[in-house]
Amino acid sequence: MSAQLIDGKSCAQAIRSEVAQEIVDIKSRDPSFKPCLAIVQVSDRQDSSTYVRMKCKAAAEADIKTEFVHLNEDVSEAQVLEKVSELNEDPSIHGVLVQLPLPAHINEDKVTSSVLARKDVDGFGPFNVGELNKRSGKPFFYPCTPLGIIELLKRYEITISGTKSVVIGRSDIVGSPVAELLKSLDSTVTVAHSKTQNLESYLEDADIVVVGIGCAQFVKGEWFKNNKRGVVVIDVGTNYVEDPSKKSGYRSVGDVEFEEALKYVRLITPVPGGVGPMTVAMLMKNTLTAAKREWENGGKLRKFEPLPLNLQ
Amino acid sequence: MSAQLIDGKSCAQAIRSEVAQEIVDIKSRDPSFKPCLAIVQVSDRQDSSTYVRMKCKAAAEADIKTEFVHLNEDVSEAQVLEKVSELNEDPSIHGVLVQLPLPAHINEDKVTSSVLARKDVDGFGPFNVGELNKRSGKPFFYPCTPLGIIELLKRYEITISGTKSVVIGRSDIVGSPVAELLKSLDSTVTVAHSKTQNLESYLEDADIVVVGIGCAQFVKGEWFKNNKRGVVVIDVGTNYVEDPSKKSGYRSVGDVEFEEALKYVRLITPVPGGVGPMTVAMLMKNTLTAAKREWENGGKLRKFEPLPLNLQ
Ligand SMILES: NC(=O)C1=CN([C@@H]2O[C@H](COP(=O)(O)OP(=O)(O)OC[C@H]3O[C@@H](n4cnc5c(N)ncnc54)[C@H](OP(=O)(O)O)[C@@H]3O)[C@@H](O)[C@H]2O)C=CC1
Ligand SMILES: NC(=O)C1=CN([C@@H]2O[C@H](COP(=O)(O)OP(=O)(O)OC[C@H]3O[C@@H](n4cnc5c(N)ncnc54)[C@H](OP(=O)(O)O)[C@@H]3O)[C@@H](O)[C@H]2O)C=CC1
Repeated sequence: MSAQLIDGKSCAQAIRSEVAQEIVDIKSRDPSFKPCLAIVQVSDRQDSSTYVRMKCKAAAEADIKTEFVHLNEDVSEAQVLEKVSELNEDPSIHGVLVQLPLPAHINEDKVTSSVLARKDVDGFGPFNVGELNKRSGKPFFYPCTPLGIIELLKRYEITISGTKSVVIGRSDIVGSPVAELLKSLDSTVTVAHSKTQNLESYLEDADIVVVGIGCAQFVKGEWFKNNKRGVVVIDVGTNYVEDPSKKSGYRSVGDVEFEEALKYVRLITPVPGGVGPMTVAMLMKNTLTAAKREWENGGKLRKFEPLPLNLQ
Repeated sequence: MSAQLIDGKSCAQAIRSEVAQEIVDIKSRDPSFKPCLAIVQVSDRQDSSTYVRMKCKAAAEADIKTEFVHLNEDVSEAQVLEKVSELNEDPSIHGVLVQLPLPAHINEDKVTSSVLARKDVDGFGPFNVGELNKRSGKPFFYPCTPLGIIELLKRYEITISGTKSVVIGRSDIVGSPVAELLKSLDSTVTVAHSKTQNLESYLEDADIVVVGIGCAQFVKGEWFKNNKRGVVVIDVGTNYVEDPSKKSGYRSVGDVEFEEALKYVRLITPVPGGVGPMTVAMLMKNTLTAAKREWENGGKLRKFEPLPLNLQ
């Protein structure tokens, strides 16, 4: 068997086009509809700047306005909180995102928690996380990477309900929320981590495997050899390895030994071009959702109740 | 092999005695130390009244004061919230518990969420649930039944880290928090539920199985026949089945087919006398913890930071 690839790049592009089209449609009826995403970046870390640039570019393409707030490395926690509070109160802003990581003297948890739940398009604040973890919770937003993974599975018409899935990694931003989403969609989910023994034994009869550990090619292709279920593998890992053949001197690889896995699995996401592009696409979708909610309520942001997102 | 029983009744009694003794010790040094638990009951449901009576009795035995607030079935949600707010503000009260279920016209989530996180000895409020679900979260309190289960495992010196465990049931009050606790203690946890296919296949190589589904003797003893690991079974189920030989006309049974399971498992909790008594014992322990925290801070309740509970 040779695996089919899950093309995250095209999926992400399709979602971004859909978002752009929906904005065009609504604007044609109501020119006052102006989705706007605020991005707060503290410091000049190069990786953060790259991510922020990608988000701004995607927003511009969809005609989502961005309000970029750049604060110096030595800004105080209170000043960051003050800024977030201003953005929370500004009715022209629909989504507020704080680019992580923050400098060590600022409490990340405190800052992400201060974003208003209905503007928390990253889905990392306590209300949205709490609702995600409840049996019948109703978050305003699901976090973008986990939501992007579910979206990929949906677009490839992969059954989730009744399946057996294994999530390797239990971080707050990847493993745990992916596991919660799969569970809420009625998969039977096992969460594995660095203390798991005989990791490969869990993969033998899994239908869906999601890997987010941050170890280059740690999950061996061979581990899927005995899996006769036509397993679907989602590789969230983004690791950089040296590659003298590249101009930059390195290339990115996933957490799965891709070439070898291709022999045994049914579907797999490549790295790059798999999960990566979906995160930004889902951020655009969440921002549109935020703007539409406010617009449908005639701008009375405070008046409406949480709406369940249609995950099914 | 014939299984050993996990005696929840004696464990619970031991914990309650330890709590009582610690209160005696602290009082001998400082007679002003007066742990107090407030219990709010709305309506006269018979089962609720029974539970509340058990809690009050356990508290009295440990010299924990109880402040029992009984509200009529037709009380408004606002009145319940007002009452909780009074209890939140009263410095002589250390734990606040709202007995569930509440009448249909009152939003349970809203009411349990209104209990101050550091008085939320039931562990059901958003702060404590949110912290429980975070990788390195620091809840003030873990919910009593799940915590009681972990305590049983600890007292029977059952290794958790590195094991494979299966939790059957994914409710907010039993299955999900038990799974979170086991995961945080480095077990590799699978959560099964009503949509799980081939449920029995998950039990073959599990080290720990927790069942909380509310279906009398649903999990067959035979399902453990092929398990060669010396599996430990925790049966949370409390179901009532008719039994003409009893004066009451019924008896309580668990979710596991107990007699048959005895043949194949290493350790198992009976029903009654297993998990049941642990819930009240852990509530006493949580209330003592709440009172000690305040006392150690000289009554300045608002001044301290969350402390990680020592689960290891
Ligand atoms: N859009 C995207 O494509 C995104 C990609 N990522 C990528 O996903 C990966 C994971 O990120 P993140 O979750 O933040 O990482 P973290 O470091 O926060 O978490 C890694 C998790 O993997 C587990 N783990 C580490 N090593 C092993 C191992 N050898 N076997 C089993 N489990 C292991 C850890 O276990 P333990 O808990 O026991 O320590 C931990 O739970 C990274 O490569 C990151 O770059 C992340 C976010 C977005
Ligand atoms: N102190 C104590 O001893 C306590 C005991 N209990 C007892 O624990 C049991 C569970 O309580 P609770 O969690 O509140 O119950 P819920 O009804 O809220 O949840 C039951 C869970 O079990 C799952 N389930 C139901 N039937 C099956 C099945 N046939 N196969 C697999 N999974 C199934 C459900 O799945 P799905 O999500 O798909 O519907 C659900 O997740 C009850 O018997 C209750 O009395 C509860 C609290 C305290």
